[in-house]
Amino acid sequence: VTDQSPERFVSRRMRTSRPARLGKYGPWLRGPNIISFAGGLPDPAFFDAVGLREAYDHVLDTMPERALQYARGEGEPELREQAARVLTEARFPTAPQELVITSGSQQGISLIGTALIDPGDVVLVESPTYMAAVRAFGLAGARLVPVETDLDGIRPDDLETKIIRHRPKLIYLIPTFQNPTGITVPAARRSQIAAVLERHDVLLVEDDPYSELRFHGEPLPPLAADPRLQDKSIMLSTLSKVVAPGLRIGWLRVPAGLRPTFVAAKQTTDFHTSAIDQLAAAAYMDRRMRDPRRLDPVRDAYRNRSDAMIDTLEKLMPAGTRMTHPEGGMFVWVGLPDQLDSDLLLDHAVECGVTFLPGSGFYAEDPVRSNLRLSFCTYPVGTIEEGVRRLAAAVERAAG
Amino acid sequence: VTDQSPERFVSRRMRTSRPARLGKYGPWLRGPNIISFAGGLPDPAFFDAVGLREAYDHVLDTMPERALQYARGEGEPELREQAARVLTEARFPTAPQELVITSGSQQGISLIGTALIDPGDVVLVESPTYMAAVRAFGLAGARLVPVETDLDGIRPDDLETKIIRHRPKLIYLIPTFQNPTGITVPAARRSQIAAVLERHDVLLVEDDPYSELRFHGEPLPPLAADPRLQDKSIMLSTLSKVVAPGLRIGWLRVPAGLRPTFVAAKQTTDFHTSAIDQLAAAAYMDRRMRDPRRLDPVRDAYRNRSDAMIDTLEKLMPAGTRMTHPEGGMFVWVGLPDQLDSDLLLDHAVECGVTFLPGSGFYAEDPVRSNLRLSFCTYPVGTIEEGVRRLAAAVERAAG
Repeated sequence: VTDQSPERFVSRRMRTSRPARLGKYGPWLRGPNIISFAGGLPDPAFFDAVGLREAYDHVLDTMPERALQYARGEGEPELREQAARVLTEARFPTAPQELVITSGSQQGISLIGTALIDPGDVVLVESPTYMAAVRAFGLAGARLVPVETDLDGIRPDDLETKIIRHRPKLIYLIPTFQNPTGITVPAARRSQIAAVLERHDVLLVEDDPYSELRFHGEPLPPLAADPRLQDKSIMLSTLSKVVAPGLRIGWLRVPAGLRPTFVAAKQTTDFHTSAIDQLAAAAYMDRRMRDPRRLDPVRDAYRNRSDAMIDTLEKLMPAGTRMTHPEGGMFVWVGLPDQLDSDLLLDHAVECGVTFLPGSGFYAEDPVRSNLRLSFCTYPVGTIEEGVRRLAAAVERAAG
Repeated sequence: VTDQSPERFVSRRMRTSRPARLGKYGPWLRGPNIISFAGGLPDPAFFDAVGLREAYDHVLDTMPERALQYARGEGEPELREQAARVLTEARFPTAPQELVITSGSQQGISLIGTALIDPGDVVLVESPTYMAAVRAFGLAGARLVPVETDLDGIRPDDLETKIIRHRPKLIYLIPTFQNPTGITVPAARRSQIAAVLERHDVLLVEDDPYSELRFHGEPLPPLAADPRLQDKSIMLSTLSKVVAPGLRIGWLRVPAGLRPTFVAAKQTTDFHTSAIDQLAAAAYMDRRMRDPRRLDPVRDAYRNRSDAMIDTLEKLMPAGTRMTHPEGGMFVWVGLPDQLDSDLLLDHAVECGVTFLPGSGFYAEDPVRSNLRLSFCTYPVGTIEEGVRRLAAAVERAAG
């Protein structure tokens, strides 16, 4: 940065906060000869463009003045009502006034940074965790501390140790079909975590973008719904994975004492989320999202794709490769034999016509470089099998 | 805040940054018996719901997979192209890649806070200035310092004095139809301001929501377009006042060296602005916003309303009342006789069936309590005249 470069104006927090590490290519490398397992992009074949068009038309026909005018920061009543219904059906009884509408979950995370985080505050996270959350908390000045994590989620004993040692302001968890690992915290572990959090002055932030995409096993209530965490939990939800990410519609469930703060943070950030998108989303949820089986085709497809990915990985990857067996969501987490570095593997993979996200970007500390994240949601089974074949070929090249 | 209240989790910057002071009632008090001059709400009679519905339908019919999928942080190419055309036509030659799409200007201001402001940085502002900008910069930790302002805008001599004394990082100006005063900086003053800024290491942020709403006089090129400010100016634009605020669509024109920082800040904040809104806005701008006379009906109406408001104020308000005579935009700034306090007047006004925003909320320092802001854009002439009659009655009560 020279004296005359405009970069001299950039804030310190922007310069020093860790950018999301997405590997050399990020999730954007695409092309006719590339199979991308990198992005968490829903399969557009399941976008209901017809139903959404109907919803937008309904809104512009029947309430154009509301859809096009300034609106209130907390969000449109109809949408908060629909969102409250969805949370209540997921066993987290919720009233509309407990919700603040956000422009997707990422904005929810970012608002938590604005509303709650002071420079130096500690945020506990899973290890690995969702990298865009790390960036948003980091930009607010948080110090991220990982809690030891096994195949059932964070370990309650280490959680308590870290709380006592670091006095965190909040803990950020994705208990269901985690990003990047795909693992789900079982009921018993949820209860143990809630017991620890009840004993300490820590706020739980539960990020829950995937729970409706369950294709194995039985649904669990959100961890944030545990009665011991009343007034100590915030929950983030989004339409990105179950309707469409392009809409940027999500919501925060916030304890009553924090709601005015979050509404003020939202208003200062962008006044309110697009009123037309909010009203169209509400109309769509009212008309098209009441049938509990409506997501069955997506779940069936994702189950088949996840199964195909895991089967093919087990068949073709070298001995010593481990992987998670998600019960839903979008991701399989693969542990390569220790000597392999997934950041280095990526170049070979791209040459072989496949991409993924290296694991190193998902750690607040001590990245495990032999891990990588694969998304199984974007392609049909045949393409997934071909992509895994290419990945196996890349591993062979990298090892050889 | 007790030990057990969830407010104990709120960040210091949220607690200490000054909330936008909107008077006792804010812009939201409405009702059949209230004429509100408080909000800067465009008249919904000018919303083109038919044209916008056509644009949304076009997007959902022809490119649903793009409109509904994740998109890039900097914004959709079609929208950046339309926005670049509009800026170029306004005599600020701009290429699409110089722009970052935002969810309205408020998000643009907030992103400037994230990308550029460190706690303690000084931001120079007009006196009075736009209160929501004050809040957004304040939340980023800025110290706001007013520059002496007369009926032609900030005074260049005081600007230089304040720059030397406070070493500000940036200066935030609304040179055209300012909020709250409605005044426009003339060409000669613009040039003097640019000359001062050229000599010092300060970034200009020009907020320009209203310039297309000119109903008297000749258009001026933006201050930010002055060639002396190349690489030292950021410009904020929005569709809120000329299409519809409900869409939340705006853009930032940013020097090349700052663009990656702004894209990263945008991605961390909410990934991207609603893709469907962006693509619909682009289609709408392409189809419906090429005729330079398309805003003539709005301009004619706002001219009549502004004239009616000023005439009626001059007729009915007490001796010693002064007011601005805007050439466009939405606001008249009224200076009551010094002994009147507009915060106290507001209660009387509401009793008389009219609201406004007290002036005290618009100052970074030393509020002038006898000023107030009236918006003339929302109602037809007859209602405006009636509203001013009620205001005059309230002044009589307050004085008596």
